[in-house]
Amino acid sequence: MRSIRQEFAVPFQYNVYFTRNIFDAGNELFATLLTPGKGQPPKKVLFVLDEGLTEHHPELFNNIKIYALRQSQAFRLVPEPVVIPGGEKAKNDPRHIQVILEAINREGIDRHSFIAVAGGGAVIDAAGYAAGIAHRGVRLIRIPTTVLAQNDAAVGVKNGVNAFGKKNFLGTFVPPFTVINDSKFLETLDQRDWTSGISEAVKVALLKDPGFFNFLSQNSQKLRNRNKEAMEKLIFRCAELHLDHISTSGDPFERGSSRPLDFGHWAAHKLEQLTDYELRHGEAVAIGLALDVTYSMLRGMITEEACTQILETLKNYGFKLWVSQLESKLDDPANENSLLHGLEEFREHLGGKLTIMLLEGIGKGVEVNSVDYDIYRKAIEKLEVFESKNEEMINMK
Amino acid sequence: MRSIRQEFAVPFQYNVYFTRNIFDAGNELFATLLTPGKGQPPKKVLFVLDEGLTEHHPELFNNIKIYALRQSQAFRLVPEPVVIPGGEKAKNDPRHIQVILEAINREGIDRHSFIAVAGGGAVIDAAGYAAGIAHRGVRLIRIPTTVLAQNDAAVGVKNGVNAFGKKNFLGTFVPPFTVINDSKFLETLDQRDWTSGISEAVKVALLKDPGFFNFLSQNSQKLRNRNKEAMEKLIFRCAELHLDHISTSGDPFERGSSRPLDFGHWAAHKLEQLTDYELRHGEAVAIGLALDVTYSMLRGMITEEACTQILETLKNYGFKLWVSQLESKLDDPANENSLLHGLEEFREHLGGKLTIMLLEGIGKGVEVNSVDYDIYRKAIEKLEVFESKNEEMINMK
Repeated sequence: MRSIRQEFAVPFQYNVYFTRNIFDAGNELFATLLTPGKGQPPKKVLFVLDEGLTEHHPELFNNIKIYALRQSQAFRLVPEPVVIPGGEKAKNDPRHIQVILEAINREGIDRHSFIAVAGGGAVIDAAGYAAGIAHRGVRLIRIPTTVLAQNDAAVGVKNGVNAFGKKNFLGTFVPPFTVINDSKFLETLDQRDWTSGISEAVKVALLKDPGFFNFLSQNSQKLRNRNKEAMEKLIFRCAELHLDHISTSGDPFERGSSRPLDFGHWAAHKLEQLTDYELRHGEAVAIGLALDVTYSMLRGMITEEACTQILETLKNYGFKLWVSQLESKLDDPANENSLLHGLEEFREHLGGKLTIMLLEGIGKGVEVNSVDYDIYRKAIEKLEVFESKNEEMINMK
Repeated sequence: MRSIRQEFAVPFQYNVYFTRNIFDAGNELFATLLTPGKGQPPKKVLFVLDEGLTEHHPELFNNIKIYALRQSQAFRLVPEPVVIPGGEKAKNDPRHIQVILEAINREGIDRHSFIAVAGGGAVIDAAGYAAGIAHRGVRLIRIPTTVLAQNDAAVGVKNGVNAFGKKNFLGTFVPPFTVINDSKFLETLDQRDWTSGISEAVKVALLKDPGFFNFLSQNSQKLRNRNKEAMEKLIFRCAELHLDHISTSGDPFERGSSRPLDFGHWAAHKLEQLTDYELRHGEAVAIGLALDVTYSMLRGMITEEACTQILETLKNYGFKLWVSQLESKLDDPANENSLLHGLEEFREHLGGKLTIMLLEGIGKGVEVNSVDYDIYRKAIEKLEVFESKNEEMINMK
C-alpha cells in the first residue's frame, strides 16, 4: 500500500491595539489598517453592531459614517450595519447568523473585504462565526466593548454559536485580522458588566503571573470604583497573558486533550446552564474559580492562607461565590441536573479523558486527570460557610 | 497607543493512503488509523455516505458493520449512517448539513470522535463542512470514491456548500484527519464519471509536470478503456502534485490574491452555472482548459503545435470542447449571462485584482493580471472550428 504524507504549517499574525475614541477624526488607526495597497481599490467594510452598544452609543454609526467619508481613500462603508442583540441571545438564534450572511451576499463582501464587529463577547463570537464560514473566511476586525471581551473573549482564535441547546456547538478556529480595544466604550458599561470580566483576569493571573494577582488583589477597591488607568492596566496584562498562552502553548487550535485556560470553567459552564444564563459568564467563572481553588487547598496543593486570599479577592470585586445550584452537590454526578455532572460533560467535551486545571500555588497551575467527588462536596460546603460569614461581616458593617 | 503583536503557526499533517477493499477483513488500515492510545476507550465513528455509492454498493454499510464488530477494540461504529444525495444536490440543500449536525449531536460525536465520509467530491465537501463547524472541528476521514474526488477534490484542505445560488458560498479551510483512496470503488463508476475527473489531471500536468502530461497524452486509449493500473498511476500522481502544491505554495489557506491551481476554472465555473450544472465539474474544466490553452497560443505564449496536442489529448478522453453557451462570446462581458462575465466574477472572488493562470509551455504555468476580451473571442472561435473538424473526422471514420 502506498501513501503520501502531507505536512505544512499555516502562519497567523494579528495585532491587538489599545486605543481610545476609535472613530474620532484624529484617530487614524482604523483607516490605516484598511488602507489598500498601491493601485488597489478601497476595501468594503460591513459593520455588525451589538444592539446594547447602539443603545448606549446612539451616535456610534453616524460617527462611523462621518469617519468613513473622511477616509474614503482607505475603505468603503456598507451604508447599513447589521444590528444583533447582545448577550447569549446573539448566539442562541441562528437567524442572526443568517442576517449577517445575507448582508455579506447582498453587499458583495468577499475574502478581501472586511467585517468589523463591535460589541460584547457573544456578538463578537457570532459575527466571527458568520465571517469565518462565508467564502471560507472573510477578514474580521473585532472591536470588543466590554471588559470580558477586551481582556479575553475577543483576543483569541475561537468563535462560535450555540445549537441543540449546547454552548458553542457550532464554531471555527479562525484568528481575526485585527483586534481594537477602545477604552472609551467601557465607560458606559453598567456596574455588573464592568466587574464581571475581572474574573478572567483573576483566573489567568492565578495560573501564570503572581505579580498580576497581587495587583488584582490590591486594587479591587480602585477597580470597583471604575478607575480607568487600573482597568486599562488590567485589560492589557490579561489580554497579553491570553495571547501569550495561545502562541506558546503549542496547541493554538486545541487539538489535544487539555484546555489549560479553562481553569474553573467546568463548573462555570455548568452553572451558567443550571441558572439558565442568569449568571453571566464572568460571574460563573468567579464561582468556578472559588470552587477549584478551595478543592486545590483541600487536596493540600495550596495553603489555606493562599486559598483565603483568593476567595477574598474575588469577594472584594463583589462576586457571589455561592448560588443555590451548588446545593446539588449531594446529587448523583450521573444526574444531568447536578453540578458535578459538569465534570462528566467536560470530560466528554475533551474527548474522553478528563483533564482539569488546579492550583499548586498562586501563579502556578497544574493539570490533573482525576478528581474526588467527596472532596468537591467538601469544597462546596466550605464555600457556603465562607459566603455566609462574609455576608454576616457585610451586614455587621 | 499600545499594541500586542500575536504570531504563531499551526502545523497540519495528514496521510493520503492508496488501498483496495478498505473494509475487507484482511485490510487493517482503517482500524489501525483509529486505534486509541493506551488506556483510552475506542473512538466513535459516524459514517456519512453518498446515496449514489450505496446504490452501486448496497452491501457497503453491512460490510462496514462486520468490519467494526471485528475491530471493536479500535473503534465504535454509530449504528446508522447518514445518507445524503450525491452530486451538487448534496451542496445545494442546507437540510443535508442539518441532518449531519443532528446526528453529531444525537450520537455524542466530539472533537476526538471521527466522521468518515465516503462518496463523490460534493458529498465529501458537504460532510467536511459539517464536520468542520461542529464543536469547532470533528476529525474527518475522507474516503473519496470517484476519480475527481480521489485525485483532486478530497485530497486538499477546503470544504464547503452552496448558498444564495453561489458555489461554495459557505465553507472552511480544515485539513482532513486522513484520506483513504480505495481503487475498488472506481470500478462501478459510469463511464462519464470515470473520465470526467481526468481533466484535473491534465490541468495539473500542464502546470507542473510535462512527463505526466506525456503519460496522459499517450495513454488516453488505455485509460478510456478502464485500465486499472493506468488509472491508479494517474490518480497517485495527480494527488501528489496537488498535495505538493498545497504544502509548498506558501499559501495553503489561500489568503493571497492568486489561485494557481484554478487554471481553466474561471470559464469552468461559469459554464457549470450557465449549463445549470448539466456539465459536470470535470467536463467544464476540460472546456475551460481548452479555452485558456488556445488563448495562451493566440498570445504567442505557447506554440500552435503544443496547443493542438493539448486539445487533441482532451478530445481523446471524449471531452466535448464546445457547448452552445460559448456562443455568448459576443455579449457584453458586463452581461451576467455571458461567458466572459466569468472573468469579472473570478476577479471579484479573488478580491479585486484579476489573476489568472495561463501556459508558457507544457508543464509551465504563468500568472497574468489582465486579459484581452477580443483574443478570448478569437479563442472561442478557434475552439468551435477545432470541435467541428473533429466531429467531421469522427463521422468520417
